[in-house]
Amino acid sequence: MTKISKAACIGGGVIGGGWIARFLLAGIDVDVFDPHPEASRIVGEVIANAEKAYAMLTGAPLPPRGRLRFCQTLVEAVTDADWIQESVPERLDLKRGVLTEIDAAARPDALIGSSTSGLLPTDLQRDMRHPERLFVAHPYNPVYLLPLVEIVGGEKTSAATIRATMERLPPIGMKGVHIAKEIEAFVGDRLLEALWREALWLIHDDICTVETLDDVIRYSFGLRWAQMGLFQTYRIAGGEAGMRHFLAQFGPCLAWPWTKLTDVVDLDEALIEKIGRQSDEQAAGLSIRELERIRDENLVGILQALKGGDGGKGWGAGKLLKDFERTLWAEGGGEAMPADPSRPLRLVETKVSPAWVDYNGHMTEHRYLQVFGDTSDALLRLVGVDLAYVEAGHSYYTVESHIRHLGEAKLGQAIHSACQILSADEKRLHVFHTLHDTATGELIATAEQMLLHVDSKAGKAVAAPAAVLDRVKAIAASHAELALPEGAGRHVGQRR
Amino acid sequence: MTKISKAACIGGGVIGGGWIARFLLAGIDVDVFDPHPEASRIVGEVIANAEKAYAMLTGAPLPPRGRLRFCQTLVEAVTDADWIQESVPERLDLKRGVLTEIDAAARPDALIGSSTSGLLPTDLQRDMRHPERLFVAHPYNPVYLLPLVEIVGGEKTSAATIRATMERLPPIGMKGVHIAKEIEAFVGDRLLEALWREALWLIHDDICTVETLDDVIRYSFGLRWAQMGLFQTYRIAGGEAGMRHFLAQFGPCLAWPWTKLTDVVDLDEALIEKIGRQSDEQAAGLSIRELERIRDENLVGILQALKGGDGGKGWGAGKLLKDFERTLWAEGGGEAMPADPSRPLRLVETKVSPAWVDYNGHMTEHRYLQVFGDTSDALLRLVGVDLAYVEAGHSYYTVESHIRHLGEAKLGQAIHSACQILSADEKRLHVFHTLHDTATGELIATAEQMLLHVDSKAGKAVAAPAAVLDRVKAIAASHAELALPEGAGRHVGQRR
Repeated sequence: MTKISKAACIGGGVIGGGWIARFLLAGIDVDVFDPHPEASRIVGEVIANAEKAYAMLTGAPLPPRGRLRFCQTLVEAVTDADWIQESVPERLDLKRGVLTEIDAAARPDALIGSSTSGLLPTDLQRDMRHPERLFVAHPYNPVYLLPLVEIVGGEKTSAATIRATMERLPPIGMKGVHIAKEIEAFVGDRLLEALWREALWLIHDDICTVETLDDVIRYSFGLRWAQMGLFQTYRIAGGEAGMRHFLAQFGPCLAWPWTKLTDVVDLDEALIEKIGRQSDEQAAGLSIRELERIRDENLVGILQALKGGDGGKGWGAGKLLKDFERTLWAEGGGEAMPADPSRPLRLVETKVSPAWVDYNGHMTEHRYLQVFGDTSDALLRLVGVDLAYVEAGHSYYTVESHIRHLGEAKLGQAIHSACQILSADEKRLHVFHTLHDTATGELIATAEQMLLHVDSKAGKAVAAPAAVLDRVKAIAASHAELALPEGAGRHVGQRR
Repeated sequence: MTKISKAACIGGGVIGGGWIARFLLAGIDVDVFDPHPEASRIVGEVIANAEKAYAMLTGAPLPPRGRLRFCQTLVEAVTDADWIQESVPERLDLKRGVLTEIDAAARPDALIGSSTSGLLPTDLQRDMRHPERLFVAHPYNPVYLLPLVEIVGGEKTSAATIRATMERLPPIGMKGVHIAKEIEAFVGDRLLEALWREALWLIHDDICTVETLDDVIRYSFGLRWAQMGLFQTYRIAGGEAGMRHFLAQFGPCLAWPWTKLTDVVDLDEALIEKIGRQSDEQAAGLSIRELERIRDENLVGILQALKGGDGGKGWGAGKLLKDFERTLWAEGGGEAMPADPSRPLRLVETKVSPAWVDYNGHMTEHRYLQVFGDTSDALLRLVGVDLAYVEAGHSYYTVESHIRHLGEAKLGQAIHSACQILSADEKRLHVFHTLHDTATGELIATAEQMLLHVDSKAGKAVAAPAAVLDRVKAIAASHAELALPEGAGRHVGQRR
């Protein structure tokens, strides 16, 4: 895996904006060129959506956000970038012109990706001086959450370019899929196009409405396809008899009249109006903004559910998320030792996400413990107990927690936590966390916790090694000067 | 909503077995006829999968499982059923014969559904004496988890039959979608067939392998389709310009050569062997059994994630699950006052879901508090503090919690909680919850909590009304005989 050092994005619409958000949130600086007068507003909205989504998506420490700069010229944007992503409108002449311009101004070793959803890389690279570093990198909306990128080379694209490209995707949480041969629309849009044509006929012929059609998808095979694709699903359907048997059975159906695909529907004004009207009814008053919010929350929830798949190992896009988080933990930015270790350590900065609130918009009880658990995790990384440490067989387990609710955290509220070590010995680590409103500093909740250093395989408490203990004790020593926090040592129901 | 009183299933393969499991787990008795010598084994395996899945799917109280009986004759199976589901192999003559036999033996008011994935109901009902009660009820595999049923009437099917059918699906957790006009393959299989044909070409032409194709689906639009379908997704893509604008833009693409659908691939032996080999590679040694387990866990996780969608209101299949659970709670009497109120109240029965575990398969710290929070909620419903009470402006808020971890809950483990009231006055409710392994009874964790009765608008503690207080005090009085639980009154770090 190799990390992109600087990205340039040419074109900042919904797709370009999605790329920009991906790069920025992975800590990569981005220079943007887009002459559209609204570009900065559109990109800003996509980034805001992405930040909301990431706050819900992962508890892993995001690196400091990359720097975003809008440039006056294409040349200025691409000059020192090592990954340049083109996302201008879908016209061959326009894209070819822009790519040739990028090619002339970029470093010779820069990778140049096109977001085209269907044009052939061979056609795009025709006029380039260094065509070997041009490839299609076709993403899916919303780019900041959907991991797929179809990577397609043209006739002049080098194998080294494809290799270098594929290596650079996991550190931004994406799944590169290399398509072996170039064809128009590659693989994903071929499949979508087939289904789309059939869908248009079904609406045109009044077999069903757009809402019914969408329900058919999302209450059935959509749920399958979020985790396994077409062939793996049919493999299961074939059961013990196997895939070959399933196919042999399926073969004759291809001759059945189960499709109108041999004919192309005329998307005339009447059909456009019909679909538009049905779509309005289906949306039931939800604005695009609201639909986007719901979509992103759902995607976050689905990705997190898949992260728990295959007995916790992670499955598909959830496994990818797990791997991405592993990278984030390993790089672990946010947890440098603070400047003044004699104060409680400010460790977690977050916002109350939509997934965390009840129907009143108040943060749910157990989410407080989630933030406090994240606080303990951040402290542990600070003393060297990171993922590698845990995978090597040792860890700190929480054995006891005492939580007090003193105020309420509400949807969207910026909150942060701080940690004071009350005491520590070879095995025990006794901490006191506080949760604050970031704007006012007001205390919202506290958690006192006892953690034990354990050998996770043996399942018993053991002394922490010197390397960890030294760091724990260094913080504990500087915290020894602090007063015992109000509420520490308290039991439930104790009078003040 | 109307509940089926007795179901009959003719044909017990994977689809028939899925229907049987749906009925049984919703508390409905099922009589089965299937002359296949392996029928009972196959159905048994599907039911076992379904039971595992439901235990993870919902914490709501499932009704006592229906009674399953294998019959010697079709007539015996259908005689007193009010819903008869036919799931025999997909041949018109065979299905028509079976349905005509069912028709002759069934009560005249019985509903008769066919699981056909493509035959026309008009053709199926041709020889029936009471054709008006025949309809297609086309489900998706696995039937016990995927909620969709396409409901299609034939020329002679009555509107009353369609109405009666649609009403009987929500109580078994299913989503009936009425297809307005009958066509071969209805809606879902039309869409699948279109995509499938294109997919076969992509493999045939070596554009990609089956694994790459599946990855393209599950890392991109599959994640979208688990929650929104085609049109709602494109509505968002259209952005502020709207659906009509999106369509107008999309129109010209239909003329592009982005599909080979005008031609039909020959699924000959060479192509079958190629797909078979690639599918073996993709499965990477996972057996069908293992793939089924992974699929079901993922579906459970996705359905639960969607249950939290739209700010906790539930979205799509998750909203449906929420509604289904509401029915279960309403019927299920999980919260009737227990027979012996002098024991701690057993309140929450659940399984550790994939979304709750860390990479080791252990339940995450804050999920313990989630189960304990659910336990408090269940206690509150028992004393009359239900959703309506809370919406009317009063509630109990948790102000303090003390959690001890004594063991570990692991993925899929059946767990339950119990609650003892330690003390209660007008405003305060002091409880002690325990969490147990259901198989062994072993104590895994405890939580001591203080709750305050509040006026939620005024944001301050107020006395609970007599109706609530009387019930709280009745339980508290019978719990007064119980010993103070070990660990109650403990503060963090206290020596035993």
